[in-house]
Parts: sequence; structure tokens; C-alpha cells
Amino acid sequence: MNRFMKIAYDEAVDAMLNNEGGPFGAVIVKDGKVISKAHNSVLLSKDPTAHAEINAIRAASEVLGTFELDGCTLYTSCKPCPMCLGAIFWARISTVYYGADEEDAARGGFDDKRFYEMLKGKNIDVKLIELDAKQNAKLFDIWLEKDDKKMY
Amino acid sequence: MNRFMKIAYDEAVDAMLNNEGGPFGAVIVKDGKVISKAHNSVLLSKDPTAHAEINAIRAASEVLGTFELDGCTLYTSCKPCPMCLGAIFWARISTVYYGADEEDAARGGFDDKRFYEMLKGKNIDVKLIELDAKQNAKLFDIWLEKDDKKMY
Repeated sequence: MNRFMKIAYDEAVDAMLNNEGGPFGAVIVKDGKVISKAHNSVLLSKDPTAHAEINAIRAASEVLGTFELDGCTLYTSCKPCPMCLGAIFWARISTVYYGADEEDAARGGFDDKRFYEMLKGKNIDVKLIELDAKQNAKLFDIWLEKDDKKMY
Repeated sequence: MNRFMKIAYDEAVDAMLNNEGGPFGAVIVKDGKVISKAHNSVLLSKDPTAHAEINAIRAASEVLGTFELDGCTLYTSCKPCPMCLGAIFWARISTVYYGADEEDAARGGFDDKRFYEMLKGKNIDVKLIELDAKQNAKLFDIWLEKDDKKMY
């Protein structure tokens, strides 16, 4: 087993044994060094966003002091769900190694597969309703006119 | 303007004025009461996941003491990016009112639109590589055999 993936795997086992969350672990590596490692802690923290990848990204950002993790590689015990894949995009992580996939997660009772299908527009069960669109679009005019804005 | 959307709008303005993040705000409402309100704080926290919706979901989970926000409605000044939409799925929020959309965000220099296209499999620029799949799939066997697991 790849040595970084083994760390992610062990994190996933820890999450289960300690009843902190589901069997998911992740590691972020830069220049061959582990920057952060984390596991799912949804149950412990009562935070639905506390997936292994999100926790690892947040920890790596704190360690490196930046929201841009370009040049970092993420190893995760299971293929990132749409939320985590979105976080990976925003963090500018360029390479992700994943172990199990959404079919395995579905077997374990997790909804990753269903959420992937929802994002593709299939059977979406969240009502997404536009409201006050024009007023809110103006926020970007204010943003664009802001002289000291920092783009990210 | 809807009164809850106005709170989200004001949060977005605050994010800009205080240089905490981009022009994005969100509010979570249950039974007509505001449970949490938040704005983007990516710049302040140096956390790429600190979008308005994620911050609002995390705060609401803390207030309500649960990772399940069913029965809650989210108002957001801009259509949720794929990461935030994933978080909304996991939090079991059933209704989302959004103001501006990904075209407006693109005008402001934000990548939401590109990330939506990447999630649809178009021009994905993150390398997703399978590794040690079989070993990691076993994590779900351990999970399923765990007597005291809590499904979520």
C-alpha cells in the first residue's frame, strides 16, 4: 500500500474506532512531506461539513498560512464527494489519489453516489429558488468597484 | 427585498467592507427564525472552504447541536457553488433561495461556473487517480461489521 495512502487508511480506521465519524481519512502532502492528516468527524463535531478532505484542507491551510494549496497532493481513502471535490477545486490542489469509490461508500450506507447524480441534475431533491436576483447581482458591481479587493 | 435575503445581502456587504472575503452572505432560517448568518471569510481565515453557506451551516449545526438541518431554509446572496451545494445536500437542507447566479459570480472573477462545468466532467483539471482501491474498500466492511455504528 502506498505510504501516504496508508496514513489516510489509518485515519479512517481511527474515525471509526473513536466513533468520531464514518470510515474516511485523508492526507495532504507537499514536496514529499505530510502537511496535514485528518479523518471524518461529522459525529463528534456535529458538523455536516467535517469530512476527512475538508478537515485536511482546513488544517493544511492553517499550517501553510494560505488558502491556496497549489503544489499539494491529496490522498483520500475514498473518492471525494461533490462537496469535497468542490473544496479541492477551490484549494487549487492539482492531484488527488483516492482509494475506494462512491459505489463502496453506497454499500456502507453513505449518500455520495446519490449526491453525484443530483449534481448532474438527476432527481435533485433540494428546491433551488431564485429570489431578489437583480439586487444581489449588484454585489458584484460593488466588488468590482472596490479598489483594495484581493482576488482569489 | 425579502427580509431574510436582505440579511444575507448585508452579510455579503460586510464581508467586502471588512476585507474578510468575497461578496457572499448566507442565512439559515427555521420556523421563521434566523438560526445563523454568515459571510465569506476565505481571506480572513485563509481557509478555502470558508464560503458563506459553509460558515452558516457550521454555525447552525453548532446552535442546533446536530449535523442534520432538515426543516431549515437557506437564503444565500449567490447561487451555491458545487462545494456549498454538496454541503447543503449533506446537511439535509430542503429549500435554498439564491440571489445572484454563477454568471454574476464569473463577472466578479469567481470560478463557480468553471467548477460547475468541471463537476459535469468538462475540462476537469484536477487529476483524480485510483490507488489501493481494494484495501480501502475493506474499510466499509469494517464499518458494516461495527455493532455500535451510527448511520448518518
